[in-house]
Amino acid sequence: MSDLAEGERALDAGQVRYVSRVHRLHVGDRFVAFDPTNAVECDAEILSARRVRLGKCRPSATTAMREITWVHGCPKGDKADAIVRDATELGATRIVFVPTTRSVARPSPTRVERWVRIAREAARQCNRGDAPEVILAPTWEEALQGIDAETRVCLDPRGEPLHAVLSRATGALAFAAGPEGGFTEAELDAARTRNFVLCRLGSFVMRTETAPAAVLGAVALLAP
Amino acid sequence: MSDLAEGERALDAGQVRYVSRVHRLHVGDRFVAFDPTNAVECDAEILSARRVRLGKCRPSATTAMREITWVHGCPKGDKADAIVRDATELGATRIVFVPTTRSVARPSPTRVERWVRIAREAARQCNRGDAPEVILAPTWEEALQGIDAETRVCLDPRGEPLHAVLSRATGALAFAAGPEGGFTEAELDAARTRNFVLCRLGSFVMRTETAPAAVLGAVALLAP
Repeated sequence: MSDLAEGERALDAGQVRYVSRVHRLHVGDRFVAFDPTNAVECDAEILSARRVRLGKCRPSATTAMREITWVHGCPKGDKADAIVRDATELGATRIVFVPTTRSVARPSPTRVERWVRIAREAARQCNRGDAPEVILAPTWEEALQGIDAETRVCLDPRGEPLHAVLSRATGALAFAAGPEGGFTEAELDAARTRNFVLCRLGSFVMRTETAPAAVLGAVALLAP
Repeated sequence: MSDLAEGERALDAGQVRYVSRVHRLHVGDRFVAFDPTNAVECDAEILSARRVRLGKCRPSATTAMREITWVHGCPKGDKADAIVRDATELGATRIVFVPTTRSVARPSPTRVERWVRIAREAARQCNRGDAPEVILAPTWEEALQGIDAETRVCLDPRGEPLHAVLSRATGALAFAAGPEGGFTEAELDAARTRNFVLCRLGSFVMRTETAPAAVLGAVALLAP
């Protein structure tokens, strides 16, 4: 929900569906309304099928604990949507898509609006009070330039075990995952120049779309 | 590939496509052929567009390092397919689907053949030499009875941090994840009776389909 002003208000069709069908709430039931874009929330009470009363706004109680940037080489089809959902649910605070050499898909800048919507929806679904920022970087070089995290990991099957790097990491994190074909040697070199460490997780090759949940699940394990 | 007998053999249509289009191999190229069902592999050489020569069979070099059973309450739609793929890629050795109280889907036993195929395909795709066993347990009680792992985790948002349990775990692991609506109190009680510990991962609510990649990613971090 955006614009959480105190007082009574009407719900739109999507909100009615969400409140009555997904959460099965009835007149008189109370719930917490989120505005993930502004990381605020408020108590709410259902007055009728289409109206709620909102209480005073406060900062969200459940937000990401750590700055985590997730950079992903543009994948095929609707995998980017799934990546936004997984990364939001597992605590990324910034998601950066970037066309790399082996990216087949070249999403138009308007695609970003869709990803921002998906991130907001995913935050609401997982009870997260803040939605990650989602952007489309024009080039790999610019995506790397935009990173200021202390610990930077570029996923590559030939890298060192992720544990070695994560277990000593404090502060902000950044991860980069390639598209279906992975990164080129030149892209890996550029990442190394920007202080990224090449790391792998697990014994097998991960598909590009599995990486966010697996890696951010591993991060969540160490920083619960 | 099944039946990796030494000598020359013809490829079927799916294998031709895999060799020539997915891996872009040409006549004279060599590769390693896997039989994930029997956890064996052999060297292979492409003789023509449809024929290969196989070398002597040997045990697979890259197989799961640890016994990991993944139990999952039957989810909606084709999420079970994605769960098989993710769990295979991240090292599960046994995948058990089970209809629970809140499962909307009640898959027929014939569905298992499809999951076995998906597991075999996923193993091949991630360079894993052994495919996990996939079964459909008739009831929650029978699924629990079939577990003999030392460390048993039932995922629940109110549980303790997964790290506490995983960091002291040695030997075989078992995880149980509920369907969309989670487990009922009675199901959680039955799991506790069977020595399952209730655990959560991360600060937010995980969707049922995200759990295998996130949790097994966390396992892979500690046991690389």
